[in-house]
Amino acid sequence: MAKTQMEVARSGGITEEIREVAKLEEVPEDWLAQRVARGTVVVFKPPKPGSRPVAVGEGLRVKVNVNVGTSLDLCNPNLELEKARLAVKYGADTVMDLSTAEPIAAVRRLLIEHLEVPVGTVPIYEAAIRAVERGGSVVDMTVDDMFNAIEAHAKDGVSFMTIHAGVTKEVVEGLKLHPRLGGIVSRGGSFLAAWILHNNQENPLYANYDYLLELAKEYDFAISLGDGMRPGCQADAQDWAQLSEIMVLGSLVKRARKAGVQVIVEGPGHMPLDQIEANVKVTKKVTEGAPLYTLGPLVTDVAPGYDHIALAIGGAVAAAAGVDFLCAVYKSEHLGLPLPEDVKESVIATRIAAHAADIVRLGEKALRWDNEISKARARLDWEAQFKLAMDPEEARRIHERVPSKSGACSVCGKYCVYLVLARSLKRREE
Amino acid sequence: MAKTQMEVARSGGITEEIREVAKLEEVPEDWLAQRVARGTVVVFKPPKPGSRPVAVGEGLRVKVNVNVGTSLDLCNPNLELEKARLAVKYGADTVMDLSTAEPIAAVRRLLIEHLEVPVGTVPIYEAAIRAVERGGSVVDMTVDDMFNAIEAHAKDGVSFMTIHAGVTKEVVEGLKLHPRLGGIVSRGGSFLAAWILHNNQENPLYANYDYLLELAKEYDFAISLGDGMRPGCQADAQDWAQLSEIMVLGSLVKRARKAGVQVIVEGPGHMPLDQIEANVKVTKKVTEGAPLYTLGPLVTDVAPGYDHIALAIGGAVAAAAGVDFLCAVYKSEHLGLPLPEDVKESVIATRIAAHAADIVRLGEKALRWDNEISKARARLDWEAQFKLAMDPEEARRIHERVPSKSGACSVCGKYCVYLVLARSLKRREE
Repeated sequence: MAKTQMEVARSGGITEEIREVAKLEEVPEDWLAQRVARGTVVVFKPPKPGSRPVAVGEGLRVKVNVNVGTSLDLCNPNLELEKARLAVKYGADTVMDLSTAEPIAAVRRLLIEHLEVPVGTVPIYEAAIRAVERGGSVVDMTVDDMFNAIEAHAKDGVSFMTIHAGVTKEVVEGLKLHPRLGGIVSRGGSFLAAWILHNNQENPLYANYDYLLELAKEYDFAISLGDGMRPGCQADAQDWAQLSEIMVLGSLVKRARKAGVQVIVEGPGHMPLDQIEANVKVTKKVTEGAPLYTLGPLVTDVAPGYDHIALAIGGAVAAAAGVDFLCAVYKSEHLGLPLPEDVKESVIATRIAAHAADIVRLGEKALRWDNEISKARARLDWEAQFKLAMDPEEARRIHERVPSKSGACSVCGKYCVYLVLARSLKRREE
Repeated sequence: MAKTQMEVARSGGITEEIREVAKLEEVPEDWLAQRVARGTVVVFKPPKPGSRPVAVGEGLRVKVNVNVGTSLDLCNPNLELEKARLAVKYGADTVMDLSTAEPIAAVRRLLIEHLEVPVGTVPIYEAAIRAVERGGSVVDMTVDDMFNAIEAHAKDGVSFMTIHAGVTKEVVEGLKLHPRLGGIVSRGGSFLAAWILHNNQENPLYANYDYLLELAKEYDFAISLGDGMRPGCQADAQDWAQLSEIMVLGSLVKRARKAGVQVIVEGPGHMPLDQIEANVKVTKKVTEGAPLYTLGPLVTDVAPGYDHIALAIGGAVAAAAGVDFLCAVYKSEHLGLPLPEDVKESVIATRIAAHAADIVRLGEKALRWDNEISKARARLDWEAQFKLAMDPEEARRIHERVPSKSGACSVCGKYCVYLVLARSLKRREE
């Protein structure tokens, strides 16, 4: 069996992927390889030869994932590919396929075929749909359904998979003593919780975790430990269920690393602003610095239609505190399936959060970009400002919408701070 | 001379405004009056009899201001009124008129006549325009121009005015030893800096601060001490100029309070995420808990076109750390004059930041709203969710865009977490 990224790094080797990532991230190769060996950095293999690997974790730029996927109410593989392409165009580092309506395998393959970025999936959805297709329901998934789905995804070249192995029988049953206002809001988590309650058995992904690690080793995909108990509202943040699952995930990280398998950990969710740092630090400690990947945190529950902004706030604070990988949230979160028109704003909002955190995490290396645009701003060099803007098209559109004859913009015209003071200084020199 | 709000509160009285604010904020009247007396809460008088007062400061909900105003490149008073009305419609607590093109007085009066919220202004703009109208330039403003403008605004019923009295000769001249990447980016600050350098004299608003206090007392408007040295890029945050001005503002707050004049302090600007809390705490300490009002902080310089999102991040963190009043930033910031189509998103983004901070500042009192919508979400009560959403129209529009037959939304359909688990629990009970 070929060695995994982690095993190569541990034996002192530098994989092609590590070499490429080191160049992209402007870090030394051996520095990076040490972190891969330790597990504080995870390298997602490229979806196919020639496309780029992406790494997440300690000392690296914060990455952005975007979710796409069919649903029973809107099932159009080309629409999902379109959203994925837009996401990558506007700067997403990875794409996850969360399809829950057939043809699931075809959508996944379409994405892997057409995208140049690592693709992640949640195989439990396909396992559940198999059970439904047989005339049963989600709780009729067999253990084979689950592992067959994982292996099929691995064979197709999926780079990382969300596996809700932390949703144990104990955690699910504990919800009775520790009820929640918002219940379980992770879709995979709710499938497994329903399965556990219905079958009165342990979560097969937990019970057969060693087998899962064998598969991950064989195909060298990274495991993304799903947070099935992520809080779905402010009131449930940092509650018994969430913290209990984090404890389980800590053990699962340890076992994955022992097996030489790369693993990242998923995090919240909804969470008040002042609890985010503590939650990130606790999770990082318990999972021994595993790269942390959050779907949020959303700092309020009252902003449906604008959850990309609630995410930008929580995501920036979380990433500054240690989160390495942010999943974009669409404005349609909590309301409906996202459409292509929603993609750009969600990606940019999440990238703003990621970059704001990079300034904290990486200092001058990240600040160079801000300094360059600020210098262009001070010399009223509009072309340079557009070029350096996170979204050049949009910056140009807005600037040109209300033209100014002053050389400045239409807010201040000739009273622009960069004209008024320059004139005064010039006069004084004359 | 009638007593100011602060003087009445100090003599143990409860003004009509304090009574009304106490009701709106759900706080005891005497608790509020004590804070008004001390100066940690400032009550903006209503623009006219019958309209609502607004208070900012310790223990109160974070408020949102929206700026409007004409410019030389787009001067249409009705357009500015339209933006102001939209701002109030979507939840702005106050509106500031930043007009820099004639008819300045008419715009201000139009806003005061038609709005039910306190209106703020920056009289130095009108003073500068008077000098330009006489054939001079900004640096030819006379001291009379400045104070005549202030008095005219006061007579028109302006509730609070930005006064850049902290831009002292010493601070401006110190920029030579302590240069900045982004220079001075406050428009009023740059006008006064240019004036100081050109005339080689002290800032008249600083030199004649006692006269300013007399005017504020006579008309009972609140002074908003402008931060002429606010950082205009990440690199200039917390620099010599910014901190030096804060020290000056600390003394000016003290003098205003001694005179019985209500005063708030303005803050940054652009600032890295991890410096915001320290800056807020330092400013609050130096200004002895004066209500703090920020135009930002923007946590990156690279997001023109999306600065409302950069503000949401920085504003939430700042307000959670103690900022009491957030000025919305439009997506057109740094690019051009905002248009009506920009208003809603900017206001909502800022309100999300304010509410995220309210959860931290006020606990259960703020969380009630989140809990109510979360309960509606868990029972799939869409009408209640729309009603409780910060923007009901937008939430409904997105939900109805891709309909679902499931009773849930089109993301998960019948696989909705609130259906899957409920079915499983029901089955178990049967």
